[in-house]
Amino acid sequence: MIKVSIIGSGNVAQHLIAAFAKSNEVELLQVFARKKESITHLLDSDKIITDKNNLAEADLIIIAVSDHAIATVSSGINLKNQLVVHTSGGVAINDLDDKNRKGVFYPLQSFSKNKAVDFKSIPICLEAENPTDYQLLHKLAKTISDTVYPINTNQRKALHVAAVFTNNFVNHLYQIGSDICNENQVPFEILKPLIQETASKIMLLSPEEAQTGPAKRQDITTIENHIAFLSDENQKDIYNLLTQSIQDDAQKL
Amino acid sequence: MIKVSIIGSGNVAQHLIAAFAKSNEVELLQVFARKKESITHLLDSDKIITDKNNLAEADLIIIAVSDHAIATVSSGINLKNQLVVHTSGGVAINDLDDKNRKGVFYPLQSFSKNKAVDFKSIPICLEAENPTDYQLLHKLAKTISDTVYPINTNQRKALHVAAVFTNNFVNHLYQIGSDICNENQVPFEILKPLIQETASKIMLLSPEEAQTGPAKRQDITTIENHIAFLSDENQKDIYNLLTQSIQDDAQKL
Repeated sequence: MIKVSIIGSGNVAQHLIAAFAKSNEVELLQVFARKKESITHLLDSDKIITDKNNLAEADLIIIAVSDHAIATVSSGINLKNQLVVHTSGGVAINDLDDKNRKGVFYPLQSFSKNKAVDFKSIPICLEAENPTDYQLLHKLAKTISDTVYPINTNQRKALHVAAVFTNNFVNHLYQIGSDICNENQVPFEILKPLIQETASKIMLLSPEEAQTGPAKRQDITTIENHIAFLSDENQKDIYNLLTQSIQDDAQKL
Repeated sequence: MIKVSIIGSGNVAQHLIAAFAKSNEVELLQVFARKKESITHLLDSDKIITDKNNLAEADLIIIAVSDHAIATVSSGINLKNQLVVHTSGGVAINDLDDKNRKGVFYPLQSFSKNKAVDFKSIPICLEAENPTDYQLLHKLAKTISDTVYPINTNQRKALHVAAVFTNNFVNHLYQIGSDICNENQVPFEILKPLIQETASKIMLLSPEEAQTGPAKRQDITTIENHIAFLSDENQKDIYNLLTQSIQDDAQKL
């Protein structure tokens, strides 16, 4: 049994608690939450601590809090030579306090409170300072996920930026699509199969092979019609910039 | 049986031929192709014509050619008072020649030659000049798809622009994500579950509810780190513009 404690009670912490609870190889020792009630639906209340000084030694302590709080929380841990990891894509391993052994346990997914996720398919990106700690992290990650990768701090930063493009920005383009539909009395539902297909396609084709549309085929007439159709200046700017970017890519081929 | 002829042998034409071939209620009368060989794998060669003057009367003639060729092809049809429709999201119904009855049969999907699609889940957007023609189009569309919508020329234009945002531009963001991964020796595979989840999420949540990330939560430190990390000016511009757009949306709430 791997003895794990978690500091935090937000989205990532809650999804990890639920995932570890299902594993026979993990013993969830303690969870620190500022408000006990926030996680009593997920585990026995005697395992929830609200005073960080009560944190006990464990095989692994996972800090699952906001990026900006990670350094402070890690230096506030009243223990030494423990393996302490954070779960963030955007924070370096060295932001953790020196008095404990450092690591990263970064599940690459966008967690929402109102939507369950299948942890098995979530890639977990790991980093540690020494092979023994890495092996422990790997063993733990494998109990909840099928895909585990060694990813150093620089690679993780790249992944985090790439995730902003492929998740946050993509969702914002869905938002713009939805806005355009609403403004023109068209149900956004009509676009959903296309959105699904767009995501499915790149499971089989590279994004380069999957690229279609007026920008890719240099269809200037359609591009001009679209720009004339858009009345929102911000939508126009985004249309122009992304069209130009696709055209530039096409010329590189 | 609805007697249908198709003009064209490209992507949309081929997917329609394959879909109609499976339907018991549709008789595929003739298909015009400039090169017979391009579609002999899809239907009997005696149904393929290469001279437009051999086009016979049918319940419906579908023009499935490039947008810019639709008007010319429709005026080149040597028949009168037929129902002639095009399949384009970007072309008005009135671009079709006056000597025949006009309509639109627009399947809203991005078709690739190398990827089969399940037509049942593809929305088909219909427009016709009179109720009788509309009913025929509706009956035909229902033989291959579960979702059929009446969509006029202006609504179709909106859908087409929205589809560029949610399909072409989204795929380009996948491309940028893939480029960032490649430049930093990270397998793009790691991002694929996130990409799937991003698309799945909006089946349950609105894009507004699904929006996450540094821009949405006004996390200036992370945004600045990301911009500093990006070395490509074009990627920086796209990052800045989309981040600003998400922030502006968040302030409207």
